[in-house]
Amino acid sequence: MAEKHRSPQKESETKTENGDIGRRLFVMRHGERCDFAFGRSWVNRCFDDKGNYTQSDLNLPPAMVPRASHKQFLKDSPLTEIGRFQARSTGDALQRAGVDIQHIYVSPSLRCVQTAQHVIEGMGNNATMCIEPTAFEWFGWYKNAMPNWLSPKHLADCGFNINVQHKPFVSVDDLHLDETVTDYYERCHKLAQKVLKKHEAEGGDILIVAHAGSLDTFTRRLLGKSPRNSQEMHQILSSFTYCSFCCCVENSKTGKWALGQPPIPPLHEFNWKVLL
Amino acid sequence: MAEKHRSPQKESETKTENGDIGRRLFVMRHGERCDFAFGRSWVNRCFDDKGNYTQSDLNLPPAMVPRASHKQFLKDSPLTEIGRFQARSTGDALQRAGVDIQHIYVSPSLRCVQTAQHVIEGMGNNATMCIEPTAFEWFGWYKNAMPNWLSPKHLADCGFNINVQHKPFVSVDDLHLDETVTDYYERCHKLAQKVLKKHEAEGGDILIVAHAGSLDTFTRRLLGKSPRNSQEMHQILSSFTYCSFCCCVENSKTGKWALGQPPIPPLHEFNWKVLL
Repeated sequence: MAEKHRSPQKESETKTENGDIGRRLFVMRHGERCDFAFGRSWVNRCFDDKGNYTQSDLNLPPAMVPRASHKQFLKDSPLTEIGRFQARSTGDALQRAGVDIQHIYVSPSLRCVQTAQHVIEGMGNNATMCIEPTAFEWFGWYKNAMPNWLSPKHLADCGFNINVQHKPFVSVDDLHLDETVTDYYERCHKLAQKVLKKHEAEGGDILIVAHAGSLDTFTRRLLGKSPRNSQEMHQILSSFTYCSFCCCVENSKTGKWALGQPPIPPLHEFNWKVLL
Repeated sequence: MAEKHRSPQKESETKTENGDIGRRLFVMRHGERCDFAFGRSWVNRCFDDKGNYTQSDLNLPPAMVPRASHKQFLKDSPLTEIGRFQARSTGDALQRAGVDIQHIYVSPSLRCVQTAQHVIEGMGNNATMCIEPTAFEWFGWYKNAMPNWLSPKHLADCGFNINVQHKPFVSVDDLHLDETVTDYYERCHKLAQKVLKKHEAEGGDILIVAHAGSLDTFTRRLLGKSPRNSQEMHQILSSFTYCSFCCCVENSKTGKWALGQPPIPPLHEFNWKVLL
């Protein structure tokens, strides 16, 4: 159809003030999640006692990733069908913008792994993702109730593009459920530093696919700013739409990082400047 | 990917109380529209003075159907990208359910034509759609301001599957801007009768793609019920989600019509039983 023609956007050059552009660190939130779209009761409505799944709505997945118990979906929600579409749109847009991301780090949450998968499929570059437990969201929202994440091996067996050789920078066992918001910012900043260090020599853009808070927690200290307090963090989160996306650019001469205009349009009117 | 497997649902048999199933009349609403998702100002934000379009958000179309003036989009909104996805999902679900619709009647609104197009693509049967001005929504919402709809010829030239031979049952010139809600129900019922009569001999399921109110206005009198008054109509409309879908079933012995369980899951938890 005529209206389907997509004029290729070659916007892969992110603008900075002085033009000394080095690497880029992209951080994005996952797409629409089933539990937020349908309420937590979706699990009990869609699975019978034996764990058989029925798609009761066209915005719920047609089939479910196999896992030990369907109860585990309660604390580890999959994407809705629109969530998949949002992630795929982001990947398509990156491809049209000429962005070719090879280094992808992902929160162990199923919704984040699914989001990264559809971004990769949209980009069409067959990159693999490294699962990083440290990229998970603030544990303050999970009092004494760490989700049972699917293992990288299990996810790879399900067909996700997982780098099964990757050894996480921090093991799940080293994570603390009682962390403060400041601890959360610190945890994410440490991961950002390790990721950036690892790829310093070879270069290339890096993508972290994680949670709403991640756009701020992975970039805040990199920009030389102090972590936000709990109230400020919760306030800024309310404006982070599904698949919100931000872009940090390294100055190749000074090694300093700054927020820049992302190379793709936003989704659902997300404005990256709220991070400034 | 393992999770992508879709178990074929053969639910094309719609259940009725006595089992004497004849034809089915499906009525569905269009998908998410740009003006409701982004506010009416999207037109002025996305088009420059010369009518050049920029996709400023990944949920806005990547390109726009060409038309005489971009101002015409103000009163005739296209679908968002999610809107297209919703329509495509409905078509996919119909295909999986073994439903093969050949008779398709569509409101002249761009959002309805686009919705029908994606339903057809999802069904994969290459059916064509007949544009029917009478299928438009209540004119009470368009005081002295009839939209400039794109002509069937123009739409066909843009690649839409249009039956350009179809002569509408009622011409645009015979529509009245000052109709009451009761007139609106009467207008839709007359169209339903004409459509059903036309395909009586050959049989086959019929789909009308139109507006939220259409699920009620095209079926209410067919079921032998009185039209709703304005207050009741507005009340019921609030529960009609995008691509909401209903199914009227003809009793092959008595020729009477009744609402039945649709052959596909709902979208966004729409409950067709509100129509009862």
